[in-house]
Amino acid sequence: MFYDAVEVASRDELAALQTEGLRRTVATCLASPFYRRRLGALGVGPEDFNSPLDIRKLPFTTKDDLRVGYPDGFLCQPREDFIRLHVSSGTTGAPTAVFYTANDVAAWANLVARCMHAVGLRRGDVFQNMSGYGLFTGGLGIHYGAERLGCLTVPAGAGNSKRQLKLLRDFKVDGVHIIPSYALHFGQFLRQEGVDPADLGWRFALIGAEPHTERTRRRIEEVLGLKAFNSYGLTEMNGPGVAFECAAQAGMHVWEDAYLAEIVDPQTGAPLPDGETGELVMTTLGRDGMPLLRYRTRDLTRFIPGECACGRTHRRLDRITGRTDDMIIIKGCNIFPMQIEQVLMAMPEVANNYLIELYQENDMDQIRVKVEVRDEVFAAAAPTLAGLHKRMVARLRDEVLVTPAVELVRAGSIPAAEGKAVRVEDHRLLEPA
Amino acid sequence: MFYDAVEVASRDELAALQTEGLRRTVATCLASPFYRRRLGALGVGPEDFNSPLDIRKLPFTTKDDLRVGYPDGFLCQPREDFIRLHVSSGTTGAPTAVFYTANDVAAWANLVARCMHAVGLRRGDVFQNMSGYGLFTGGLGIHYGAERLGCLTVPAGAGNSKRQLKLLRDFKVDGVHIIPSYALHFGQFLRQEGVDPADLGWRFALIGAEPHTERTRRRIEEVLGLKAFNSYGLTEMNGPGVAFECAAQAGMHVWEDAYLAEIVDPQTGAPLPDGETGELVMTTLGRDGMPLLRYRTRDLTRFIPGECACGRTHRRLDRITGRTDDMIIIKGCNIFPMQIEQVLMAMPEVANNYLIELYQENDMDQIRVKVEVRDEVFAAAAPTLAGLHKRMVARLRDEVLVTPAVELVRAGSIPAAEGKAVRVEDHRLLEPA
Repeated sequence: MFYDAVEVASRDELAALQTEGLRRTVATCLASPFYRRRLGALGVGPEDFNSPLDIRKLPFTTKDDLRVGYPDGFLCQPREDFIRLHVSSGTTGAPTAVFYTANDVAAWANLVARCMHAVGLRRGDVFQNMSGYGLFTGGLGIHYGAERLGCLTVPAGAGNSKRQLKLLRDFKVDGVHIIPSYALHFGQFLRQEGVDPADLGWRFALIGAEPHTERTRRRIEEVLGLKAFNSYGLTEMNGPGVAFECAAQAGMHVWEDAYLAEIVDPQTGAPLPDGETGELVMTTLGRDGMPLLRYRTRDLTRFIPGECACGRTHRRLDRITGRTDDMIIIKGCNIFPMQIEQVLMAMPEVANNYLIELYQENDMDQIRVKVEVRDEVFAAAAPTLAGLHKRMVARLRDEVLVTPAVELVRAGSIPAAEGKAVRVEDHRLLEPA
Repeated sequence: MFYDAVEVASRDELAALQTEGLRRTVATCLASPFYRRRLGALGVGPEDFNSPLDIRKLPFTTKDDLRVGYPDGFLCQPREDFIRLHVSSGTTGAPTAVFYTANDVAAWANLVARCMHAVGLRRGDVFQNMSGYGLFTGGLGIHYGAERLGCLTVPAGAGNSKRQLKLLRDFKVDGVHIIPSYALHFGQFLRQEGVDPADLGWRFALIGAEPHTERTRRRIEEVLGLKAFNSYGLTEMNGPGVAFECAAQAGMHVWEDAYLAEIVDPQTGAPLPDGETGELVMTTLGRDGMPLLRYRTRDLTRFIPGECACGRTHRRLDRITGRTDDMIIIKGCNIFPMQIEQVLMAMPEVANNYLIELYQENDMDQIRVKVEVRDEVFAAAAPTLAGLHKRMVARLRDEVLVTPAVELVRAGSIPAAEGKAVRVEDHRLLEPA
């Protein structure tokens, strides 16, 4: 029934596990340059933690802290114990890196396997991973979990819908991992190909990496002819496998034996009661290599009060409803407007202003950048402009990892803002949650 | 000194291991529909194998056999024991699939770790995998091997040179896996960026997936400022990790405890003595899920006579010097001209003739397809032709997995062949080996 007995541990048992995990994690953290300094200044040690609530004795860790500590200021084990790292962003946006020991990779795979089991997948099922691999944790993270569960795993990677379809059919796939925007696009592709999704015989889609509404989920289920399950994860907390929906599809169980989750007021940092929306703050309880204490995810959500029909005792997170910063998520990639600005401002042809527009096309979220170019450049011959356009697209793609549409416009044609510049216009259809 | 004591086993010990492996493999094969029929017809069983040479009692297995058996006619274990599959080609070219049990994945990782150790990489070294992941075995195959060896593995994936460079620097990478054409391209990129390769401090590049000459290897070593090691593998034999150069760089040791390699006359199938060039034929000795007996690789090479300075006793394969079929390898992807023909002939706008041209640009092998289009299409407005061009590029890319240059030409403009049509023109610089 459950992948792991801990999924139905009593709340008291979970509290005991969390306390123990918190003590162990604080002890481990003392080996890293960053936390040794920070915890040393506070004078706290493992012995100060006697309940999960004692976590409030600790200060927050922020993305800026990770950037300052980049690349390896948070490591708690000898260098030779690490076997993997993932990086969260491009080349000019200050990146953050997460390092994993062999134990961490195995524990992560186990959590992902638990998530996939909760959805309904079992050993022997065929599972196609339709998300990109590489530094994006969604690829290798889900892949290792699927193998751990014992699914026959098809590492399809992202894109190439025709080939995806052939694999789905040839190997009688039961479940897939797919980002929501590509799921909608793939549904459109199936319609164009005249494929009845019901004929595919697939049953499960794990959809994560992009926040989406309940209506989008229902639409994915309709166009693909399966059940779609929301997934939550972030590279700083390993990647996918942090919180996952069960068959009840009523919120995402956060694995409380592996993570201590809090919801706080984003302004004051004060803890909020279950049911109230605030910023999700996460602490790893079982990570050896690079534990993080009270990491501010900048994701806005809430705990769903009450018990879940499935019997699991781990609390459920509601859908992510927003961010406390200006991060944009397109095709599963995290983009900060500042990354785009840095690329543009390093190009001498660019004039003063630019505008990022978000829109939808073919059911997928897209990004377009309007860029003012200097008058003498704008007046140049067509091949010069075309060359600049090509170069700009390539540099932006290398930085944000998706290919944006780029439109070169005359200097002065983007209205100057009065006061704080508006750099992003979101024209995506906003659907009721 | 060695990753595994078996690397220096005596030839007698290896022969005993191979005989034992051959018996076990024949016994395992009897569980698959394909081999049960074939071995049954011959009346041979495990007891008939008393030396590695007894392998000659067995018939060959060909790529056509694999295609006929697609998708799962070669499986020797219950379906639920498989956790991975890789597929060797696109959507219309009849694909072949290889399935792996958990044991197979672990054994494969072990062989790759052994290869990486032979090159000089060690636990604690930082290793950047600069090849694509997904269904291409070079990605996950090398990745699992690097983690098994205990390297800090950076799953960079292919492309995005700027980001690759940042990762190389930030994490002080010791070794990389990179396909030869991208290695040369990356060298050019470093020069353009004004980077002295010596400043990177890297030492090793594993280069595989594309046959290349000794001169290309030396050029890669020069432009990257490291030692480059040739690697041999093919999806049917797991992927990378079949044969690998050691520090002596004098041929690729084929792991004879895991594979039984033969060189045969491609016309008659008769075994050739060590030193003579012929077709490489491979038998898996340790694979549980999908063992293959006497698989004809279509790769032309020879055993290098004599002993290796490194002390390893496993025989060495020379560079691959050609193929017995018309397969083209571009950017690590296997392309058969027939795949291109099938895509083109499914498009009603296409006239009778086409031509595949191979050439070099930016130090990388490229593919261009000239396609005759019907007169009324050729006479159509520019947007119509542009639309056709775009559609054709997309369909070809989806099929062969690299993006070809496409040139639409007037019907009749490609000279008709007298006799057998010439479909491929190879304009690549042929370098002396």
